[in-house]
Amino acid sequence: MLYDEAMASTRDRIIVATNEMFRRHGYNGTSLSQISAASGATIGSIYHFFPGGKEALAVSVIETTAGVYRELFDSIAAEADDPPLAFADFFAGAAAVLEESDYIDPCPIGGIAREVASTSEPLRNAAAQAFLSWIAAARKHLVDAGVPPPAAGELATVFVAMVEGAFVLSRTQRSDEVLIAAGKQMAELARQAVVSHPNLPPVSRPSRAGSTR
Amino acid sequence: MLYDEAMASTRDRIIVATNEMFRRHGYNGTSLSQISAASGATIGSIYHFFPGGKEALAVSVIETTAGVYRELFDSIAAEADDPPLAFADFFAGAAAVLEESDYIDPCPIGGIAREVASTSEPLRNAAAQAFLSWIAAARKHLVDAGVPPPAAGELATVFVAMVEGAFVLSRTQRSDEVLIAAGKQMAELARQAVVSHPNLPPVSRPSRAGSTR
Repeated sequence: MLYDEAMASTRDRIIVATNEMFRRHGYNGTSLSQISAASGATIGSIYHFFPGGKEALAVSVIETTAGVYRELFDSIAAEADDPPLAFADFFAGAAAVLEESDYIDPCPIGGIAREVASTSEPLRNAAAQAFLSWIAAARKHLVDAGVPPPAAGELATVFVAMVEGAFVLSRTQRSDEVLIAAGKQMAELARQAVVSHPNLPPVSRPSRAGSTR
Repeated sequence: MLYDEAMASTRDRIIVATNEMFRRHGYNGTSLSQISAASGATIGSIYHFFPGGKEALAVSVIETTAGVYRELFDSIAAEADDPPLAFADFFAGAAAVLEESDYIDPCPIGGIAREVASTSEPLRNAAAQAFLSWIAAARKHLVDAGVPPPAAGELATVFVAMVEGAFVLSRTQRSDEVLIAAGKQMAELARQAVVSHPNLPPVSRPSRAGSTR
């Protein structure tokens, strides 16, 4: 049991360290020896957990990060005062993270995808699945708010594109202005989508078990 | 004269070849020897034109590409049937380019920026200037259509973020759906911004010298 926990903890430590290396230096700019130094795990240990080497490790980083961001969106969506504002809240949270982290990339997925989409199918596929899972989360939020599924899907796709693009611009300009602007405009699009379907369920979210709102 | 032309042509050939290498393999994934092979220029010749090496060459690639895209936006904006539709037309053009090029990155700037914004100030600055020049072009287009400057600036910033994000998603998913959706939603935001300022100049573009419309 203790052995299993130690193993799990080493694997997690490798993933966390690699995540940050990718966010600072990109995929090709990060070597296994740098990952070894940053995580305190030997190269042999990295290959033990990730026999496919850096590419396999990057797939795990993408999958782990995808889950974290999806949960973050769901939790922000559940707490938003008004469904369209969830998008503004999400961008505001990202702005705070960027400032705190001195504008390193808030997320390794878009960067990896852009770097190796033409050269690594495993990484391209993992990134595509990550984006699809975020689109599904945003789409569900919009459908719950009364937006019909086709329009909700399109808007959710644009939301994820805005997140990725705003990350690039804010990081490049070392400013959170674009994140705040994107949040405002995305909330506006969501509001328009909600109000243009007045015959559907009311704008407020359906109540859920356990909700205190 | 012929010598000058040959020199200019070699320099251009290096920039064009590097642009495509960056779009396929990223900044760190591209070596000077690969650039030499792709451009048919010797490494010595590359250093002759770009004494600062790959980083200096990348600054020139960013500046050249920034100008090309800015001119492209201006020309699409000048030809749009209706100002808000210029944004949809721009994304539709990008979608066609992506399909034709087998989804290599349509633009090297966002990728370079994301890869090295934390590690190269010259490249981060060049990318920031590129984004600002596109924002200025989109802002002018919106102001010409009657949107007040502060709102136009914010919307123009979001437009450039949507372009960069849609490039990432479309490339990752090997689909132009996100580009078409982004064009539609951006046109919608532009239309809302135009119609919410009815006391300002009419929605149609001001006439210009040489315009046949």
